[in-house]
Amino acid sequence: MSVTTPQGFRAAGVVAGLKSTGAKDVALVVNDGPRHDSASVFTSNRCKANPILWSEQVVRDGVVRAVVLNSGGANCYTGPDGFQTTHAVAEQVAAHLAIGAGDVVVCSTGLIGLANDRAAVLAGVDAAYAGLDPEGGGDAAAAIMTTDSVSKQVVVDGGGWSVGGMAKGAGMLAPQLATMLVVLTTDAVVPAEDLDRALRAATRVSFDRLDSDGCMSTNDTVTVMASGASGITPTLEDFTEVLTRACTDLAMQLLADAEGADHEIAISVLNAATEDDAVEVGRSIARSNLFKAAVFGKDPNWGRVLASIGTTGAAFDPADLDVAMNGVWVCRQSTPSADPTTVDLSGREVSVTVDLKAGDARATIWTNDLTHAYVHENSAYSS
Amino acid sequence: MSVTTPQGFRAAGVVAGLKSTGAKDVALVVNDGPRHDSASVFTSNRCKANPILWSEQVVRDGVVRAVVLNSGGANCYTGPDGFQTTHAVAEQVAAHLAIGAGDVVVCSTGLIGLANDRAAVLAGVDAAYAGLDPEGGGDAAAAIMTTDSVSKQVVVDGGGWSVGGMAKGAGMLAPQLATMLVVLTTDAVVPAEDLDRALRAATRVSFDRLDSDGCMSTNDTVTVMASGASGITPTLEDFTEVLTRACTDLAMQLLADAEGADHEIAISVLNAATEDDAVEVGRSIARSNLFKAAVFGKDPNWGRVLASIGTTGAAFDPADLDVAMNGVWVCRQSTPSADPTTVDLSGREVSVTVDLKAGDARATIWTNDLTHAYVHENSAYSS
Repeated sequence: MSVTTPQGFRAAGVVAGLKSTGAKDVALVVNDGPRHDSASVFTSNRCKANPILWSEQVVRDGVVRAVVLNSGGANCYTGPDGFQTTHAVAEQVAAHLAIGAGDVVVCSTGLIGLANDRAAVLAGVDAAYAGLDPEGGGDAAAAIMTTDSVSKQVVVDGGGWSVGGMAKGAGMLAPQLATMLVVLTTDAVVPAEDLDRALRAATRVSFDRLDSDGCMSTNDTVTVMASGASGITPTLEDFTEVLTRACTDLAMQLLADAEGADHEIAISVLNAATEDDAVEVGRSIARSNLFKAAVFGKDPNWGRVLASIGTTGAAFDPADLDVAMNGVWVCRQSTPSADPTTVDLSGREVSVTVDLKAGDARATIWTNDLTHAYVHENSAYSS
Repeated sequence: MSVTTPQGFRAAGVVAGLKSTGAKDVALVVNDGPRHDSASVFTSNRCKANPILWSEQVVRDGVVRAVVLNSGGANCYTGPDGFQTTHAVAEQVAAHLAIGAGDVVVCSTGLIGLANDRAAVLAGVDAAYAGLDPEGGGDAAAAIMTTDSVSKQVVVDGGGWSVGGMAKGAGMLAPQLATMLVVLTTDAVVPAEDLDRALRAATRVSFDRLDSDGCMSTNDTVTVMASGASGITPTLEDFTEVLTRACTDLAMQLLADAEGADHEIAISVLNAATEDDAVEVGRSIARSNLFKAAVFGKDPNWGRVLASIGTTGAAFDPADLDVAMNGVWVCRQSTPSADPTTVDLSGREVSVTVDLKAGDARATIWTNDLTHAYVHENSAYSS
């Protein structure tokens, strides 16, 4: 159930000593072909980590033959020396595989502002290359975990071909993208341009709609590699649908494992004038600390939902908004409706539905509550 | 030290029974003239409370003769019946003072989505009118407190005239404006148009730069009334300067009393291309839950500062940012500089300085840290 389920891929996850815990911390995923189409999306943060600066150049030609990832250090804001480390890692992978370094995507995750131990990472690359295995997906997924409590993997069958994926991320989950490293693989035949179109369509409605804490990462990378090893060429529509299912599944795994969260909250905005309006309204609610703290307290505080909607530029009548929580319409026409005490927020899953009555577009944004544990985990020294 | 320090004003604060604690909850501030110039700014939230809908109409002609305020209920999202309560309160004040209801600003604060007891508020208005006193400012300031731990008052002397003020607010502090009710008074002679110009200039650099938790209120109102009772006409520049000092002083009192905060954080952005850039960068940092939780944990996590800057559209070179915390330049040229462990964040006051190296504009945004107490106070049922 992983990146090595589709044919044509090998992977490994090894201990390189970057993590003080001694857990696996270097992963390698290799596309053995016959094709090497790829597509990637990266964080839109302008202050990017060194692996992003490197990988943005690598992916331009639509060819990626390997992705090497490390946890235990983000290699972010580490200057030219940090960039040299990224470059050296790509060269080391390329030398082993007898390919060009320009076909190697590099991803890093962990602490910001601290240099990675270059010798340790390079030794990890050697070990990972030696350990490459057609069954190695699980080890690779384990090696990219940071504060994740579980590894995240997915396989979606396309009928003779499949999409596999692994992800890491447990906080700093916000758009474009959530803080995450994601590697997706497929043995379908998908030319790079189609792969790019499918990936952007899939991330737009999955990872981009995850907004755990409003904080945008410096290292986010989602890369998909297509080996073509199944020999099957699905329609773009079919491939996009399967890829979207894989991305959505991984996104929900990230949401469920968000740092310190007690609740997974799905905010569905209905009858918006445009999809952009629906996303803007959903995101404004997802970023309200007051609303998120109320959900933690199991308080169906719909007033805080309306107060958030009011900060947006979306089309709606402020006097005619309806809000439901877990299916109970606690607010109709911007005034109290059903008794809020009938809303049971004791379960992990919470739904908020907003009816803007302004059109027929809709979107769902996923977020988490704001908890003592979130504050605790993110206030520990140099977490 | 209050709204009744300038000549020409009387005030009162009484118990009307809106607060379950039995504390004062209705306040009245009356301008006895001879002039009745006024100016106001309101929340930019599109989902406004009923008192805002009323008061926005009242202030249009630049004449306000009284401000009546209640705590114990925000009268927000309470529909047409709630609006009738606001209207009735203004009429009651007007009848007592033999003025028009259209010269009475109404402010409410407290829970959203619950109707205020109209009879109780009206009885409170009667008692407040009966209690009006040229020394009543302190009682009025006490009557508008909600989760505030102390009342907020200020007087700034202009030389023969003065500005007095009172404020309430202890959370939901975000721009345009912080959640606050503010009444300012002056006995200077200031025509309404000048008063408006001065108030907008003053709030732009004080209340509008306070961003405690990123959440925009539904009830924010800042009203200034000028009685002209001193007979002195200051220059607009002098008046604006004194009014700005009064607003800044009240803003700092709000910051210091923010719900659950352990730290007051001043984020100064230097050498920006424009003041708007400086404000955008400062606000992005002020709204990073990760950064705010790190300050709570006394962790000088400058990486989270850079990650926030990177989400903005401001002009800067991502590879050439400098960041200081409490005067220690922990980041130069977007890489580690001074040892972060030398930064002492044990005190309440924290300064963050960002050098964008893109121009000569600057701005300071004030915020608080994200603490267990914040989560606790805002997760209690129907807080």
